[in-house]
Amino acid sequence: MLLPGDEAFMRAAIRLAKEAEIEGEIPIGAVIVKDGQIIAGGRNRRELGKNALYHAEIEAIDAACKTLGGWRLPGCTLYVTLEPCPMCAGAAINARIGRVVYGAADPKAGSVHSLTELFALPYNHRPAVTAGVLEDECAALLTDFFARLRKK
Amino acid sequence: MLLPGDEAFMRAAIRLAKEAEIEGEIPIGAVIVKDGQIIAGGRNRRELGKNALYHAEIEAIDAACKTLGGWRLPGCTLYVTLEPCPMCAGAAINARIGRVVYGAADPKAGSVHSLTELFALPYNHRPAVTAGVLEDECAALLTDFFARLRKK
Repeated sequence: MLLPGDEAFMRAAIRLAKEAEIEGEIPIGAVIVKDGQIIAGGRNRRELGKNALYHAEIEAIDAACKTLGGWRLPGCTLYVTLEPCPMCAGAAINARIGRVVYGAADPKAGSVHSLTELFALPYNHRPAVTAGVLEDECAALLTDFFARLRKK
Repeated sequence: MLLPGDEAFMRAAIRLAKEAEIEGEIPIGAVIVKDGQIIAGGRNRRELGKNALYHAEIEAIDAACKTLGGWRLPGCTLYVTLEPCPMCAGAAINARIGRVVYGAADPKAGSVHSLTELFALPYNHRPAVTAGVLEDECAALLTDFFARLRKK
């Protein structure tokens, strides 16, 4: 279910995805929102950071834990341009994130709906989820990136 | 399938779990091995570190990426005292870890066999897996910890 502010917060995630692209990374961005305010953001930095953990959602969850001073992020919503992989969906469960909103589906690694539905399993926390917010813009980030990459 | 060295490397993970316990954390430890050498280790630091990401496996994968200088960890084996949660199993997939060896099953969050079998899904990488190495010792770490906690 789309809530007020969802598109504006997804636009903030898209801006972070574009920052990743400028750095030569696959353009994926994320923000975490609490009480209507963005409290953390992240972007994919896997190649430059040389680290398998440096996904946009992980960077955002790490920053949000540091901002709020604890490992639980209750009342927080994670906005991310691409459907989370199992690592990032699992991190959202572990951080007790209340709601996850994503843009484009990821048929290769998406673990909220595509390859499996991690939030439907009986873990000790299950985030609510909204899919497809600004889906076309979020998907275009990736298709345009890979089209340009193939041209090079 | 048990391989030579598996029990010795799991004992190294158990030592890290005991370090976590001394720090007041739930005792879970992990090491990463490449070419018969331990190249990285980690322990659960969630409470003191105030961060949902600070699982033993994540700390070990982070350290291994830094040691090897890249986000891929091919030819590496991750040893962990407890069955990985979805975040950590997903991180092993993302890092292209060749094999995951764990001690005790985790009926609450284990995502290699217990709640789901992430390594059986068609992600672009599937680690081999061996379960139950020094299972009793690994399980006792946790049951003893929680028994002492209840007494306090």
